[in-house]
Amino acid sequence: MSGLTHFDDSGGSRMVDVSAKPQTLRSATARGRVRMRPETLALIRDRKVAKGDVFEVARLAGILAAKRTGELIPLCHPLGLDAVELRLEAEGEDAVRIEATARLVGRTGVEMEAMAAVSVAALTIYDMCKAVDRGMVIERIALEEKSGGQGGPYRRPDPE
Amino acid sequence: MSGLTHFDDSGGSRMVDVSAKPQTLRSATARGRVRMRPETLALIRDRKVAKGDVFEVARLAGILAAKRTGELIPLCHPLGLDAVELRLEAEGEDAVRIEATARLVGRTGVEMEAMAAVSVAALTIYDMCKAVDRGMVIERIALEEKSGGQGGPYRRPDPE
Amino acid sequence: MSGLTHFDDSGGSRMVDVSAKPQTLRSATARGRVRMRPETLALIRDRKVAKGDVFEVARLAGILAAKRTGELIPLCHPLGLDAVELRLEAEGEDAVRIEATARLVGRTGVEMEAMAAVSVAALTIYDMCKAVDRGMVIERIALEEKSGGQGGPYRRPDPE
Amino acid sequence: MSGLTHFDDSGGSRMVDVSAKPQTLRSATARGRVRMRPETLALIRDRKVAKGDVFEVARLAGILAAKRTGELIPLCHPLGLDAVELRLEAEGEDAVRIEATARLVGRTGVEMEAMAAVSVAALTIYDMCKAVDRGMVIERIALEEKSGGQGGPYRRPDPE
Amino acid sequence: MSGLTHFDDSGGSRMVDVSAKPQTLRSATARGRVRMRPETLALIRDRKVAKGDVFEVARLAGILAAKRTGELIPLCHPLGLDAVELRLEAEGEDAVRIEATARLVGRTGVEMEAMAAVSVAALTIYDMCKAVDRGMVIERIALEEKSGGQGGPYRRPDPE
Amino acid sequence: MSGLTHFDDSGGSRMVDVSAKPQTLRSATARGRVRMRPETLALIRDRKVAKGDVFEVARLAGILAAKRTGELIPLCHPLGLDAVELRLEAEGEDAVRIEATARLVGRTGVEMEAMAAVSVAALTIYDMCKAVDRGMVIERIALEEKSGGQGGPYRRPDPE
Repeated sequence: MSGLTHFDDSGGSRMVDVSAKPQTLRSATARGRVRMRPETLALIRDRKVAKGDVFEVARLAGILAAKRTGELIPLCHPLGLDAVELRLEAEGEDAVRIEATARLVGRTGVEMEAMAAVSVAALTIYDMCKAVDRGMVIERIALEEKSGGQGGPYRRPDPE
Repeated sequence: MSGLTHFDDSGGSRMVDVSAKPQTLRSATARGRVRMRPETLALIRDRKVAKGDVFEVARLAGILAAKRTGELIPLCHPLGLDAVELRLEAEGEDAVRIEATARLVGRTGVEMEAMAAVSVAALTIYDMCKAVDRGMVIERIALEEKSGGQGGPYRRPDPE
Repeated sequence: MSGLTHFDDSGGSRMVDVSAKPQTLRSATARGRVRMRPETLALIRDRKVAKGDVFEVARLAGILAAKRTGELIPLCHPLGLDAVELRLEAEGEDAVRIEATARLVGRTGVEMEAMAAVSVAALTIYDMCKAVDRGMVIERIALEEKSGGQGGPYRRPDPE
Repeated sequence: MSGLTHFDDSGGSRMVDVSAKPQTLRSATARGRVRMRPETLALIRDRKVAKGDVFEVARLAGILAAKRTGELIPLCHPLGLDAVELRLEAEGEDAVRIEATARLVGRTGVEMEAMAAVSVAALTIYDMCKAVDRGMVIERIALEEKSGGQGGPYRRPDPE
Repeated sequence: MSGLTHFDDSGGSRMVDVSAKPQTLRSATARGRVRMRPETLALIRDRKVAKGDVFEVARLAGILAAKRTGELIPLCHPLGLDAVELRLEAEGEDAVRIEATARLVGRTGVEMEAMAAVSVAALTIYDMCKAVDRGMVIERIALEEKSGGQGGPYRRPDPE
Repeated sequence: MSGLTHFDDSGGSRMVDVSAKPQTLRSATARGRVRMRPETLALIRDRKVAKGDVFEVARLAGILAAKRTGELIPLCHPLGLDAVELRLEAEGEDAVRIEATARLVGRTGVEMEAMAAVSVAALTIYDMCKAVDRGMVIERIALEEKSGGQGGPYRRPDPE
C-alpha cells in the first residue's frame, strides 16, 4: 500500500500536481441513503404528489454542491463539470436513496463531486424534515463506480 | 405529525420566518463515522504521529463548511457562528469517528451547521485516503443532541 | 436631493457605517417579470403539472441569491436574513411574474436582498427555457414596498 | 418546439451533459437598462466627472458576478471565462444602459454569464442610488447576440 | 505569555467560543504598502486623473474581501460588518499606501477584516500593474489600532 | 512602458481577453514573511512538535485561497489549478517564511494564485497568534519566478 499523496515529504498537505496528466472523460457515481420514520417518508411522498417537493430541493442542493466541491474539500482540484445528475427515490418504507453521477473531460477524477452531491442532498433532506423527525440518520455514502482515470475503472464489489 | 414548514401553502419552498423568535444560546452536536480498511487507518495513525495529519485537514474542512452551511443548504438561515469544534478519533481497527459541536446566540438552531461539519470532514477523509482505499464508506451521520430552542432540548435515544 | 452616501469625500467607494443604528424589523418586497412566447409559458405550465418544475428551481435560486447579496453587491452590508419568500406565477399568456419578500431584524434594510432574489430567479427562468426561446426578456424589476427603516415605510406609487 | 432539457424523464432537474461537445470559441452579449429620475442620472454624471464613479463600481460587480454565474444559476455549467467586458452609459435624460460581453473557448455557451453581468451591474446601480431615488426600475434585460454554438449564431431581431 | 487559543487540549484547531461575550462596538485599522517603480506609480496617477482608476478597483476588492474574511481565514468567526472603508494614496515616488478600517457591533474583534481588506487591495494593485512591473513588492501589512474588546484598546507603538 | 491592460479605451475596467492565447504549462512561485516576537515563534515551534500546528492551518488556508483567486481579485481570470504547494518554515529567531507555487495548463499565468496563497497563509498565521502578539507584521510578499507565458520566464533579480 503506497502512501498518502496529499502530503509532501515533510508532512505538509498539498494539492497533488496533475498538470502532466492527459485530459480524458471521467465519470463517477456515488450513493447514499437517509433513514427516517415511515410517517416522514409518507409526508415526503404526499407532498411530492400534492405540493412541495423535497426531492427537487435536495437534487438542486446536490447539483450546486457538486459545482463547489473544490471550495469544500481542501485538497481537491477546482474542476469544471460537464454534467451532474442526481436520482432520489423512496426505498422501502423508511428510507430515501440518493444517487449522483458527475462527468467531466479533465485531468483528474470526479469522485469527490459525486460524493459531495450525495452528502449535501442528504443534508438538505434532513434540514427539510427535521422539524417532524429529528432522529433521521444519513447512512452509507460510498463510491459505486468510476471510470476514465489511469488506474482503470472501479466498480464496488458490494454495490448498494 | 405536523407538516413540512419549508413549503408555503401552494407548495413553494421558502426560508421560514424566524424574525419574531427571541435570540437564545443554541448548541448542537452531530456525529458520524468513516469505515475503512485497517491498513488505511494505520496509515492515518502513522502519519499523524510522523508527518501529515489527516485529522487536522478534515477538522479544518469541517469548520469552514459549518460557516458556509447557509450557502449549501437551500432553506437554511444564514447564520453567524459563535463556536465550532470537531473531534476526530480512531474507533476500533477500521473506523474514524467524527463529532462536531456548533454554538450560537441566535434566533434559530445550529443542527445543520453541526451536521454539515461532520459531513464535510468525512468527505475530506475520503478524499485524502481514496488513492489507497476507494471502498471507504461514510456511515451514520446523525444529530446527537441540541439545546436552546423553543421545543426544549433533544437528546438522541440511541446515542452512538 | 442629497448626495450618494456610498462615496467618501474624496470619491472613494465605501460601505456606509450603520453601527449606530438601532436593530429594528426590516421588510422589503420587490417584483419583476419575464416576458416569453406563449408556447414557452405553456411548456412551463405543462411541466409544472406533469414533471419538471421551472418555478421551483427559480424560487430556490432566488432564495440562495438573497442569502449572498452582500457578496454580489459590492457596497451592501453582509446581512443574515430571518425570512425569504418568492412567489412565481403565470401572468396573462406570455409572462411569469416574480415577487420576493425578505425580512430581518437588523441595522439596515433588505431591499437589495429582495431585488437580488427576483433578479436571480428571473435569470434562472431564462436559463431553463433559453433552449426553446432565446428571445425572452427580463422586464421591470423594482422595489414595491419596504418598512422598518428610519425614513419610514415606502410604497411604490404605481405598483405593478 | 422541443422540451426543456434541464429536466430528466421523471421531471428531476439536472445539469445537461456537454462532455461530448467540442470546445469552440463562444461569445455572448446581453443588454439592460436602469430607469431613474433625471436628477439621479445627473448625480451619477456629476460624480463620475468629479468624484465617485457609480459606473465603475457597477462594472466591477458585473465582472465578478459573471465569474460566479455557475454558483448563482443552479443548472448552469461552471465555466472559466476568457474575457468579460461591461459598457455603461447614460441613455437620454433618465436611464443608464448596460451592455456585457462574455467570451470563452469551451463546450457550452456564455449567455448566462453575460446576462448575469448585466443583472448584477443593474442591481449595483440601484443599490448605490437608492437613498436618493427608491423608485428606479431595472428594465429589459435580454440577450442581444451570441455565437459559437452548434445552433449557429443568434442575433436579436429587435435589438435595443 | 499564554497559549494559542485556536487549539484545543489535544492540539486540534477550533473556532474559539465567543457566545458568552457581550456585544460591543468593535473597530480596527490596518495598513500596508505596495512598493513599485516610479514609472508604475506615475501610470496609476495619470490614469486616475484621466481614465481608469486602479485605486477604486483595489478599494472595492478590499471591501468585498473584508466581507468574506470568515471564509478565507479558517478559524475566524463569520461576522457581519457594519462599516468598511479603505483609503489608498500615493506615498513618495514609488509606493501606494493602503489603510482599512472595519467596524461592527459584535462579540469579537474585526482586526482580521481590516487586515484582509488591506491584503486583497494590495494584491489587486499587483494584479492590475503586473504587466508593466512584475517586481512590485507588498510590504508591511500590520494592525495599527483596535478598540472595543475586553483587553482594552490597542495602538501600535511604532505606527506607520 | 505600455499602458494598463485592465482598462478599456474609456477607462472602464475589464477582464482582458485571453481566448486567442494557446494553452501552455504555467508555473509561478511567490514568497512572503511574517515577522513576530521570538516568543511567538517559539510557541509555534513548540506546538508544532507537541500539539497544534499553525503551519498546517496556514498552508490549507493558502491552498483554499489560491483556488478562489478569481473571486477575490476582480479582474483575474477564473482558473482551475493543476497544483498548489505551500512551504512554511521558521526563519531566524523571529520570522516565518512562506513560499507558494501554483501550476496550471492554461491560457494565462498563475502569479496571482501564488501571491494570494502566500497572503492568506500570512493572514492565517496572524489570526492564530494575534492573541499573544498583536504587533506581528506581514512583510515583503513578492513574485519570485514564473514560467510558461508568452513573455518568457521571469526570475526576480534580488530573490529573497
